[in-house]
Amino acid sequence: MNPPVIVLVAPQLGENIGAAARVMANFGLSELRITAPRDGWPNEKAIAMAAGALDGPVAISVFPDAAAALGDIERVYATTARVRELSLPVMDARQAALDLMQRPEEERAAIMFGPEASGLNNADVARANAVITLPVKASFSSLNLAQAVAVTSYEWAMAQGGGVSAPVQNIQTLARRGDVEAMADHLEAELDEAHYFWPEAKAASMKLNMRAMLSRLAWTEQDVRSMRGWIKALTRRAGSNEE
Amino acid sequence: MNPPVIVLVAPQLGENIGAAARVMANFGLSELRITAPRDGWPNEKAIAMAAGALDGPVAISVFPDAAAALGDIERVYATTARVRELSLPVMDARQAALDLMQRPEEERAAIMFGPEASGLNNADVARANAVITLPVKASFSSLNLAQAVAVTSYEWAMAQGGGVSAPVQNIQTLARRGDVEAMADHLEAELDEAHYFWPEAKAASMKLNMRAMLSRLAWTEQDVRSMRGWIKALTRRAGSNEE
Repeated sequence: MNPPVIVLVAPQLGENIGAAARVMANFGLSELRITAPRDGWPNEKAIAMAAGALDGPVAISVFPDAAAALGDIERVYATTARVRELSLPVMDARQAALDLMQRPEEERAAIMFGPEASGLNNADVARANAVITLPVKASFSSLNLAQAVAVTSYEWAMAQGGGVSAPVQNIQTLARRGDVEAMADHLEAELDEAHYFWPEAKAASMKLNMRAMLSRLAWTEQDVRSMRGWIKALTRRAGSNEE
Repeated sequence: MNPPVIVLVAPQLGENIGAAARVMANFGLSELRITAPRDGWPNEKAIAMAAGALDGPVAISVFPDAAAALGDIERVYATTARVRELSLPVMDARQAALDLMQRPEEERAAIMFGPEASGLNNADVARANAVITLPVKASFSSLNLAQAVAVTSYEWAMAQGGGVSAPVQNIQTLARRGDVEAMADHLEAELDEAHYFWPEAKAASMKLNMRAMLSRLAWTEQDVRSMRGWIKALTRRAGSNEE
């Protein structure tokens, strides 16, 4: 699936153009269009902030205005913090990414962002098929331009299947309960030997609580082997000290 | 639900501390902890980049190291770009946000980020309950620190129900925006000619709403050809009526 084109309308700061390019490259987007950049183009600060993204991963081109930048695009999403009076569908970045995924493969899409100080004006929002809004606090809603590009690009990468499929991947299989029991038996025997369960009247409940604790923890087979090694090492040392 | 604490371990650039604070405030997070900031604290560049986030919305505190910063935290997520040999569960930011939502309300959680150049070292990753990874391209995986904070903070806001509830419909084979603009220009010119945009005081908003309506409709190429044919036919008739 072709990633969406990112269109920055009249960006003010070169730093934001560069940071947007960098995060686009992070998430696999490859075409950046800017219109009427305030500080001109090329821009040294943009190139520094891009950290290499503009040397291959992301192609950048400059247009006079949003209409020109969108000329060959079939589907346009406009990002805006404010709810508009314009009658356009409103979606969040996740819905926009899923919406993109359901479009014909040959269709070209763009996500459009406004200038830092003011955001997109109504005339440019009115060029879009839909509006994207992000879940910002009403009391602190001014999102940095490159951060807005980051979140929408991230959602596109997630919609491509970039997420982790199973939350508990990197853990080896859990130990069998029989091995956990054997470990508990081992520990209890050694603690008995060390007269740990005292006074006598409390020994039974101390043992029960130890069992419950060992049962609750998600021991892997390796964890059980490690724990038994520690018990052995500690009791060997205790033994040698007694001599 | 209390938002997670963000912990930046040994951040190098004040700009990134400030940008992290700003995006935390955007998405409703309120506590930032930094350890051993390279350029010291307070830092003028951080305060400038925070755009007011450090003047109330986000409380910041400084610790000597990660162990100290995590002392009163019950559950820790470590963000890392590389797959580690450590046997910790690996999840994406969305799964981590859902995981957070399922924890007891009184539990305190933190999301930890490493220094810009190197990321978290293994000793600090080993302090975590789980690892968060983001869907970055292997060929361009170095995500800016504040961008990583943005995505994880965004996912927390989304998990809080910050998204848009209404889904959006799909239509096929759209016309290019250039053709839609040309159609809008054509209709506006003919309506102007017909003195349609009246009274004068309302003309601008009538035109803007007309543009928004034309943008919202999922015009196919055939739709655009039909519409332009209708405009021509109607204006021809109007012309013949004048005779």
